[in-house]
Amino acid sequence: MPTTRSVVDRLLGSLASATRSRDERRAIRLAKLLRTLVSERGESTGAVMARRAVALYNGLEEGGRNLLFDVLARDFAPDPQAVFEAASAYRDSPTPAHLARLQRVSEPPRQEVFRRMNMAPGGTATLVGLRRRILERLPDHPELEAVDADLTHLFGSWFNRGFLELRRIDWNTPAAILEKLIAYEAVHEIRGFPDLKRRLERDRRCFAFFHPALPGEPLVFVEVAFTDALPGEVSPILSLDSAVGEPRRARCAVFYSITSCQPGLKGISFGNFLIKQVAEDLHAELPNLKVFATLSPVPGFRSWLKTRFASHDAALAGLWEAIESGDRLPADDCDDLLASLAAHYLTREWKEGQALDPVARFHLGNGARLERVNARADTSPKGLRQSLGVMVNYAYSLDEVERNHERYMREHQVACAASVERLAREANALIAATR
Amino acid sequence: MPTTRSVVDRLLGSLASATRSRDERRAIRLAKLLRTLVSERGESTGAVMARRAVALYNGLEEGGRNLLFDVLARDFAPDPQAVFEAASAYRDSPTPAHLARLQRVSEPPRQEVFRRMNMAPGGTATLVGLRRRILERLPDHPELEAVDADLTHLFGSWFNRGFLELRRIDWNTPAAILEKLIAYEAVHEIRGFPDLKRRLERDRRCFAFFHPALPGEPLVFVEVAFTDALPGEVSPILSLDSAVGEPRRARCAVFYSITSCQPGLKGISFGNFLIKQVAEDLHAELPNLKVFATLSPVPGFRSWLKTRFASHDAALAGLWEAIESGDRLPADDCDDLLASLAAHYLTREWKEGQALDPVARFHLGNGARLERVNARADTSPKGLRQSLGVMVNYAYSLDEVERNHERYMREHQVACAASVERLAREANALIAATR
Amino acid sequence: MPTTRSVVDRLLGSLASATRSRDERRAIRLAKLLRTLVSERGESTGAVMARRAVALYNGLEEGGRNLLFDVLARDFAPDPQAVFEAASAYRDSPTPAHLARLQRVSEPPRQEVFRRMNMAPGGTATLVGLRRRILERLPDHPELEAVDADLTHLFGSWFNRGFLELRRIDWNTPAAILEKLIAYEAVHEIRGFPDLKRRLERDRRCFAFFHPALPGEPLVFVEVAFTDALPGEVSPILSLDSAVGEPRRARCAVFYSITSCQPGLKGISFGNFLIKQVAEDLHAELPNLKVFATLSPVPGFRSWLKTRFASHDAALAGLWEAIESGDRLPADDCDDLLASLAAHYLTREWKEGQALDPVARFHLGNGARLERVNARADTSPKGLRQSLGVMVNYAYSLDEVERNHERYMREHQVACAASVERLAREANALIAATR
Amino acid sequence: MPTTRSVVDRLLGSLASATRSRDERRAIRLAKLLRTLVSERGESTGAVMARRAVALYNGLEEGGRNLLFDVLARDFAPDPQAVFEAASAYRDSPTPAHLARLQRVSEPPRQEVFRRMNMAPGGTATLVGLRRRILERLPDHPELEAVDADLTHLFGSWFNRGFLELRRIDWNTPAAILEKLIAYEAVHEIRGFPDLKRRLERDRRCFAFFHPALPGEPLVFVEVAFTDALPGEVSPILSLDSAVGEPRRARCAVFYSITSCQPGLKGISFGNFLIKQVAEDLHAELPNLKVFATLSPVPGFRSWLKTRFASHDAALAGLWEAIESGDRLPADDCDDLLASLAAHYLTREWKEGQALDPVARFHLGNGARLERVNARADTSPKGLRQSLGVMVNYAYSLDEVERNHERYMREHQVACAASVERLAREANALIAATR
Repeated sequence: MPTTRSVVDRLLGSLASATRSRDERRAIRLAKLLRTLVSERGESTGAVMARRAVALYNGLEEGGRNLLFDVLARDFAPDPQAVFEAASAYRDSPTPAHLARLQRVSEPPRQEVFRRMNMAPGGTATLVGLRRRILERLPDHPELEAVDADLTHLFGSWFNRGFLELRRIDWNTPAAILEKLIAYEAVHEIRGFPDLKRRLERDRRCFAFFHPALPGEPLVFVEVAFTDALPGEVSPILSLDSAVGEPRRARCAVFYSITSCQPGLKGISFGNFLIKQVAEDLHAELPNLKVFATLSPVPGFRSWLKTRFASHDAALAGLWEAIESGDRLPADDCDDLLASLAAHYLTREWKEGQALDPVARFHLGNGARLERVNARADTSPKGLRQSLGVMVNYAYSLDEVERNHERYMREHQVACAASVERLAREANALIAATR
Repeated sequence: MPTTRSVVDRLLGSLASATRSRDERRAIRLAKLLRTLVSERGESTGAVMARRAVALYNGLEEGGRNLLFDVLARDFAPDPQAVFEAASAYRDSPTPAHLARLQRVSEPPRQEVFRRMNMAPGGTATLVGLRRRILERLPDHPELEAVDADLTHLFGSWFNRGFLELRRIDWNTPAAILEKLIAYEAVHEIRGFPDLKRRLERDRRCFAFFHPALPGEPLVFVEVAFTDALPGEVSPILSLDSAVGEPRRARCAVFYSITSCQPGLKGISFGNFLIKQVAEDLHAELPNLKVFATLSPVPGFRSWLKTRFASHDAALAGLWEAIESGDRLPADDCDDLLASLAAHYLTREWKEGQALDPVARFHLGNGARLERVNARADTSPKGLRQSLGVMVNYAYSLDEVERNHERYMREHQVACAASVERLAREANALIAATR
Repeated sequence: MPTTRSVVDRLLGSLASATRSRDERRAIRLAKLLRTLVSERGESTGAVMARRAVALYNGLEEGGRNLLFDVLARDFAPDPQAVFEAASAYRDSPTPAHLARLQRVSEPPRQEVFRRMNMAPGGTATLVGLRRRILERLPDHPELEAVDADLTHLFGSWFNRGFLELRRIDWNTPAAILEKLIAYEAVHEIRGFPDLKRRLERDRRCFAFFHPALPGEPLVFVEVAFTDALPGEVSPILSLDSAVGEPRRARCAVFYSITSCQPGLKGISFGNFLIKQVAEDLHAELPNLKVFATLSPVPGFRSWLKTRFASHDAALAGLWEAIESGDRLPADDCDDLLASLAAHYLTREWKEGQALDPVARFHLGNGARLERVNARADTSPKGLRQSLGVMVNYAYSLDEVERNHERYMREHQVACAASVERLAREANALIAATR
Repeated sequence: MPTTRSVVDRLLGSLASATRSRDERRAIRLAKLLRTLVSERGESTGAVMARRAVALYNGLEEGGRNLLFDVLARDFAPDPQAVFEAASAYRDSPTPAHLARLQRVSEPPRQEVFRRMNMAPGGTATLVGLRRRILERLPDHPELEAVDADLTHLFGSWFNRGFLELRRIDWNTPAAILEKLIAYEAVHEIRGFPDLKRRLERDRRCFAFFHPALPGEPLVFVEVAFTDALPGEVSPILSLDSAVGEPRRARCAVFYSITSCQPGLKGISFGNFLIKQVAEDLHAELPNLKVFATLSPVPGFRSWLKTRFASHDAALAGLWEAIESGDRLPADDCDDLLASLAAHYLTREWKEGQALDPVARFHLGNGARLERVNARADTSPKGLRQSLGVMVNYAYSLDEVERNHERYMREHQVACAASVERLAREANALIAATR
């Protein structure tokens, strides 16, 4: 890795400069250590050096971190010329030896840096934190994309489903973990332990994925309510005063909240596996459960309405105030119109081959079916702001998931109930008129 | 992945042929499934398909497995032309986007196959077993080297030190695990549970690394004896009748056996970490321990003697019968000569930049110091066959490990005690005379 | 047990009466079952019958329970004549056989009833609950004293220190247990999980005793704060905003709250063992801790002042308003007087051979030393009401505990610091003057 | 406890005597400590003193122990006069207060001694060991019966079914526990770990009761084999080479061995609960199991035959040699006669209201039914010696256990299959002829 060495040497030279802060000097010391770590010297004392590197990194402040990220982006990258030569050789003669050389030179040395850092106690948590910082900085520093790609690649391998542990969360779970659920919950805020306790009673379930190297850190969790019928609004589920039902008599398992906990693991997909695994396990435990479905927000609906229509569109007159303000519930007599527009939005509006709505993208991509559209389902400020109160149910039928997924991916067709399709068609005229 | 598809299609075509066995037809079905598994369809139902793939693989017999390995080697490889184009683009403009494309096309689709199979329960164990089969077949099928390289790459990432759990093994360990130690022990055979029990008394220790995805499967284990002085022979340590000593009074921790348990994880280095971690932990627990050293075999010594010298070399007259037969202990008056030759062999004989003796290679590469050469240290049939009874002590001083390692790697110098160096020099004349 | 049989038969007869409520009829059914349970028939199917008995008991309402308690008190008692005969025989000839007969007839059959009920899952919890009910009813029903005595005897044996498990409580403890601490805390109210969290930081400790048959049910817990100096007031310890200190630098371990959790285990002493065990363990873990002391309330102080003195006692003029109202802190210049009176109260006021103050009784009986009296130490409403804000420190020096205990028990002398003794003497004149 | 004090004082006086051994002097020191332990002084420092007492006891040798046992028998007994007075008062007026006094003075102070010793770590194990020694000494020292009775009383309370934990033993159980099963197995010797392993395969089960205060010490364990039909001989079950069956297809659960592990807990009945609990649990787990039965030895059969008949009894001519020698299997044509005699022996021969055969006593007392008599069922030396090879099946039908138990206890009638009853009748003539 001559490149790396010279660059770091250059950086080290600049240490003389009085303009470097203490923090930046520490970052340079770390960069030097990382260079050694991936050299042969790192082999015999890898564990010791890795501990030192992790400690150094965790002591950095923002300036030092940013400097380090720059070094990682520029100086721990594959050598373009070496890659080209290896690729040429492989093209001319695709032998195992040529392939091995190609892989060796085209893998960024960063990846080995991260694998080595991971050896230290707390290494995995440190790297997940490091990526979180990279992601925060990415929008303004596209050159960090390559660093992010390397971390994504490694995390995809390390956080493979086969290494995750599904754990039930209940009132016997350590408070330190419950506290994290309260902090992380992204869909329906949990207002402290008493609120959480209701969500862990026997007619509710909560499951999370954990990774052995991040004990005590949920990666993603899902909250389930057992109900008699598919619910059309969220408040009865969230109510603290509701009577506790009997799981053996319920018909529906409603996934009413799913939350990814680790920003540093963004894009590593767990939610997909979590829902299906939980559905499978609940099905085995409680054969009385016949319907597995979500009660989901439609986060992009209002902003789409706002962009797509104009205040002078007569058909939306009754809605326009609500659309513009985002803080009030439309009148009852607009419910059908709203539902029809939402059905259209979720089944007909696409972007780059995917559903426009992010939550729809997730569930439809997983092979779920859009089962029902519910007006005035979430009248919280957030529900009004996102979707004028509309929520939907996505149903997971394990035997049609594969077919739905394929139709969605290949044919851009949304699996949905006949009633939803009818609703979507009712919006046709309106859509045509305002084109 | 058009290449893969066409090849598999070709294979599928040949299904018509009545010459395919049931086992081979199953292998082809599996190959087809693996192709789907790494396609986009695999995303939604990955877990289900992965389970099917693992079950199918585990049902294969030798013929089917070999066919599958061929397909993996040929048809799940990177496309040389695509790699070349991506490398050219990256050379011309080393942007994150070009790098991302390069990495995507140069990574063999096999890796994704294995990552997907790993999602199934038991997936990791299945893949470790798959590599064991590959390694058995490798000597006669060099084309499998690329498949092996991919598995090695993945396992290196998955079995990262940071994911391993160090566990003490004692008489309270489940019998199912103890039974495995008995079966795996490669250095000094364990003759059943009573033998093992002596090795787990309070003046002995045993530690193993485990991986969360292979519960109940030790990856590597080390056996330690606490002694007053550095031992020069192994039988007192292995004796079932020896008095149990007091750990708080011992001076030496002797690593008298270290065994890798999983042939499918060959080359993924754990032993290095294990010895150092155990030395560190024991040091913290028992400050009375001052010396951390091995009592190690010299497995290549007799075969080197046999090749290097000839029956007419007068200086070795007293040894020659023992060298040739490998079943007797040389006479007492040959001890000095033997020790001197062993010191020479271990410190002066190299091959491809590494010590010739495999055990020396491991410990010296780890930064250990060759502390003492012991004649008539292991008089078991194995000890005589390998080294005419010679064993040596490698000492691990945590503060000189890094320096020793570097001198060994860069300068091809073996760190050794002054007495060993003297012994090695005494062999100079003899070596010169027989050159 | 002819007595029992006939009485129950009599009760059963009265079942005919239409005046028995359903609940009472259930109690009678249970009484009949308990009679069978302690007969020989109970031996073969004891577990099944015990389950039935526990279920029946748990289904009783107040009327049924009270009827059952009456039956237990009257009809499961030893036969006076049989006892007398056995005692006479034993007096005339104290053989093992006579002793055995004496013990058999003098043990109330109730004890066997309870031992049998205990065999059922949840039996222990049911019996602890049953005694709680007995204790509630005892003040107005002295005939239940004998039932209570039997339960006390059994619990004393079952909850023997040797069967208790000391567990550290921290933020990783299941929420279901933490919730109980919050509910039970009797000294300084815990206002929800965030409050509790501060009490579980690293400069605090919490320990509880558990019994294997009541998993998840703390029996008694103690809260400890690590401080630099012996604290003279409680608010800094309870403050949510205090900086978290470093345990390795603290000098004092302050037991600032100790709470018994199970009313049904009243009188079975655990607290004594808990404090000493925790002191011993902390001493071993943190050798920097030199002082083990409480910060304790003086719950009987104000009520003693009120009874002992009169509003016209000139010496207490400045205090009288506070004494009478119990809702205000006396002026600063009364602090010395208050401390002096408290020192007198705690060291000189006795009742039936024990210190008058209940908390003093507990700690002095345990062999602690009264170390310091602190005015204005607890200005909470409860602190003012109980003791006009006074709190005291009891010090536990493990090597003087035995001596202190004996002097306290035999000589009615309170071990106290010289300064406390001085304070107590200062009150002499005042006490004499108002006698 | 003036009595105790004076006696110990007397003993202490004799310390002067040079004839006391060191061991005996230690026993006297312990006796003195125990006297203090149960005095009020013991309250504050009970835990410390209890530890000292346990350590002292465990250091005693035989002489010291025996001296201690004497002191416990004589000097820690209830005061006959005090008992008499309390009993008189209670007879005259059976108030709770009089009852309390009666109980206080009639409980031997030994019981409090043992409760206090139990507070020390390892106390329970020490006391169980102490009773083992008492039991060994009892036959020649009937005065220890009272000490034994006190320990029996306490253990009956402490080892109440409600405090026991049922654990499945399998190949994942710690070797330290498995080793104990091997050592304790009393019915069919386990010849080392490989033998045990076969008994833990999936068509076998092993369960044990544990007590929380004796972790790692099984109290009693039962071995179960799943079979198609009720087995008539034991060797197929014990064979190491038998094929492993499928539990889901078995019809019978055969309890082929039940072993009490702790001599110090003799007479505290666990086996009864264990069999029924295991039957219940297996029934719930494997509904295919329809028959729960033992395959049991008939340990007293040969010795009864020997005593009951005489060598000149013509009817037993073919058997007599086998009866006398106890080392050979009778000829085939005696099988019917043997079975008939065994059926008679087990159903008609009583002693003190119980079945004469000890194993029959246990199972019939538990409410089992004698289901079948099997000749040539156990041809091991032990089987021949005890019963000329006869074994029997006792069946546990949970719904008839109570009825069987009662008929057995009250009417001295043995529940047995019609075929067994027929066999027993066939022996009538023979029995009559030889009366």
